[in-house]
Amino acid sequence: MDRLSATFSALADPTRRAILARLALGETSVTELAEPFEMSMPAVSKHLKVLEKAGLIVRGREAQWRPCRIEAQALKPVDEWLENYRRLWEQRFDRLDAYLQELQAQEKTGRKKAPGKKARPIRKK
Amino acid sequence: MDRLSATFSALADPTRRAILARLALGETSVTELAEPFEMSMPAVSKHLKVLEKAGLIVRGREAQWRPCRIEAQALKPVDEWLENYRRLWEQRFDRLDAYLQELQAQEKTGRKKAPGKKARPIRKK
Repeated sequence: MDRLSATFSALADPTRRAILARLALGETSVTELAEPFEMSMPAVSKHLKVLEKAGLIVRGREAQWRPCRIEAQALKPVDEWLENYRRLWEQRFDRLDAYLQELQAQEKTGRKKAPGKKARPIRKK
Repeated sequence: MDRLSATFSALADPTRRAILARLALGETSVTELAEPFEMSMPAVSKHLKVLEKAGLIVRGREAQWRPCRIEAQALKPVDEWLENYRRLWEQRFDRLDAYLQELQAQEKTGRKKAPGKKARPIRKK
C-alpha cells in the first residue's frame, strides 16, 4: 500500500482517531492508553500497530515502559493532499453565500425575480 | 461506519484519489472517467460507489448520461479534524528550525557547546 493510502486507512477508525487525540496531549503507556477505551490489551495493541505502520505514532524502546508518542507530521501529506480541494469547497461556499445574500435582498425589497433571471444554480462549473 | 471513517476509508485508495483529482477539473461520464485508468467498467463503478457512499461524489439522474461530480465540501470534516493536529506538526517544525539555526550559529562561531548545554531534544513535550 502506498504511504498516503496507509495513512488514510489508519485514520478510518474512530478508536484509532481517539488514540491519536489522547496522544496529542502527551506520550503515554499502552496500559494508560487502553483504560478509557474499555478494550482488551490485544485489541489496543492491534490498533497501535496499524498507527505505527502508518508512521502516525512511535513507541519507545524501554523494555518496562514502551511509551507511545504521536508523530503529527505524518499527517502533513494529508493536509497537502487536501490543499488541492480546499479551493473547490471554498468556491462552493462563496456561491452559497452569494445566493443567500440574493435571497435576503429579495426579501427586503419584497420583489421576486422573473423566472428567467433565477440565481445561478449552486453547482460546480 | 461513522461518516468521518467512511470518508477516510474512501480516500485510502490511489485510484479513488485519482478519480477525485479528475473530477476536480469538471464533471464527466463514467466512460470518460474509466479511460485513463485502463480498468474495466465494473471496477470503476465499484470505486464510484465507495466515493458516492462517502458523499464525495454525486451522480446525475439522466438515464443516458450519468455524469459524476465531486462534492469537495465532503472533505471539509477531514480538514477540521486535521486542524487539531496542525498545531503539533508546526510546533515540531518550529523546534527543528530552532535547532538548525543553533547548529548554523555554532558553525559560524566555530565553538561547540558544553555537553550539558545541548540543544533541546526534538520531541513532543
